[in-house]
Amino acid sequence: MTTPTDQVRDPDFARRVRSSFDAQGAMRLFGARLALVEHGRVEIEMDSSPEFTQQHGFTHGGVIGAVLDTACGFAALTMMPPDTGVLTVEYKVNFLAPALGAHFRLVGRVRKAGRTITLSEADAYAVREGGEKLIATMTATLMTIVGRDDVRS
Amino acid sequence: MTTPTDQVRDPDFARRVRSSFDAQGAMRLFGARLALVEHGRVEIEMDSSPEFTQQHGFTHGGVIGAVLDTACGFAALTMMPPDTGVLTVEYKVNFLAPALGAHFRLVGRVRKAGRTITLSEADAYAVREGGEKLIATMTATLMTIVGRDDVRS
Amino acid sequence: MTTPTDQVRDPDFARRVRSSFDAQGAMRLFGARLALVEHGRVEIEMDSSPEFTQQHGFTHGGVIGAVLDTACGFAALTMMPPDTGVLTVEYKVNFLAPALGAHFRLVGRVRKAGRTITLSEADAYAVREGGEKLIATMTATLMTIVGRDDVRS
Amino acid sequence: MTTPTDQVRDPDFARRVRSSFDAQGAMRLFGARLALVEHGRVEIEMDSSPEFTQQHGFTHGGVIGAVLDTACGFAALTMMPPDTGVLTVEYKVNFLAPALGAHFRLVGRVRKAGRTITLSEADAYAVREGGEKLIATMTATLMTIVGRDDVRS
Repeated sequence: MTTPTDQVRDPDFARRVRSSFDAQGAMRLFGARLALVEHGRVEIEMDSSPEFTQQHGFTHGGVIGAVLDTACGFAALTMMPPDTGVLTVEYKVNFLAPALGAHFRLVGRVRKAGRTITLSEADAYAVREGGEKLIATMTATLMTIVGRDDVRS
Repeated sequence: MTTPTDQVRDPDFARRVRSSFDAQGAMRLFGARLALVEHGRVEIEMDSSPEFTQQHGFTHGGVIGAVLDTACGFAALTMMPPDTGVLTVEYKVNFLAPALGAHFRLVGRVRKAGRTITLSEADAYAVREGGEKLIATMTATLMTIVGRDDVRS
Repeated sequence: MTTPTDQVRDPDFARRVRSSFDAQGAMRLFGARLALVEHGRVEIEMDSSPEFTQQHGFTHGGVIGAVLDTACGFAALTMMPPDTGVLTVEYKVNFLAPALGAHFRLVGRVRKAGRTITLSEADAYAVREGGEKLIATMTATLMTIVGRDDVRS
Repeated sequence: MTTPTDQVRDPDFARRVRSSFDAQGAMRLFGARLALVEHGRVEIEMDSSPEFTQQHGFTHGGVIGAVLDTACGFAALTMMPPDTGVLTVEYKVNFLAPALGAHFRLVGRVRKAGRTITLSEADAYAVREGGEKLIATMTATLMTIVGRDDVRS
């Protein structure tokens, strides 16, 4: 699907997204790395840790959800004009399997980029010996914020 | 609304929930405290920190989402039988205002407790001088897990 | 919670909402009636019919969802300025019990009215002999539309 | 992704799904046709009508949502064992463009089929001269129901 909104609005988007990612204390806390930034798509990697667990020893679904939110938001930001910021309106995450694995890979991509509202999707995979397993999937509504000094990338 | 499922199924639910909460590495990481445990309702408190921020300096919505998920899950667990565990099937969170404040209060409560499926809701408030402000709200589907050694509270 | 957005922006909101409701072919198809319009809240009533069923003979959850969407949207519209329109960005519905009953009552209310984005919630009740039963609950994100001739109430 | 649950559990699934679809009063009301039934995937077609409109003359998002729910549910049912039924636990739909068009095509597919819980996704397209336009997308949680005479396909 090609739409006008699929055009690159900010040739410098990758630098802008990386700088914004680096400004997130929460991603540092989770040891999350921005592995790939493309127009409309980002990939994040993180390792599991006893610090991220829920009560059964799996990685907390909410931690996976927080990084999926970031993947959705930055995928959206790659397609937004310069001097704008991105805020999350809402997201929903479905959990498909326990978050068991040494590493996780989280892939966010834009489904539809509008002037004000963008829909992103993201999938989380547990990386294990012998392959990857889909553990969670998210849809998120992001909003382009213009003219607010406190919300700018 | 009073239904058969509103009966207390485990008189020891508060101890069980507190023990399960204490087993979450993620809640320790967020400095979250279980402030209240009632049948069908829990409250969690946490402080803001530069470690939890997104790129504009607000507390990351995904971190708020992770603690809301915990509030929904443990509210559900208060109403489940002994020797069961709780897993999150899905949640959706809507963000209503930036997560700005020194403290946050998160309130989870059961809307409907079924044999297999429970619906919980949770609200997050930023605690500021002069009052509280609603910043996010969640609905979550929880599943009662029976007979799995790896999923037990 | 009282916020500036809780002020009445259009004293004529009830007439505007009723006129907009009457313009919905889908509500006529479902035999849905607008039973109450207040600032920030609407109630809709409808009867069950073999025309609305899913495969087990219950009223189709998607039909309940469509009327809940309307309840959320019109609750939001009561709080919007004149000469604006409302569009649904997204909704999520959780089903709590089969939609069995001669009548249904659907209650929509605004949780937070913003300049651009409004969050509404709605509950669906099956009306039976001896009382009402909660069968479904929705959260919906609505958008205020300004300056579009094709989207106006 | 190949998992044990991707195996055909009911060789007669297509007949079962078609029979269940035909039993839905709501799909007859919407003039919806089951255009394709494959293992893990169904397609539904419907025409627009003044009977399905919201207040601006577009097809009501809730009507699109109801047919998307059906697409998700029957995609799930194709992968369920004989003598089971399917119920919707929850769904979320995001609207991407006004539902304008003479015809709509709705595609549901299973993302993950579990023993109790299945996650389906569905997209709605407006069919217009010169191509299709994505107008809405859904994720839905479906539950396999065993041993209930009132919920069987």
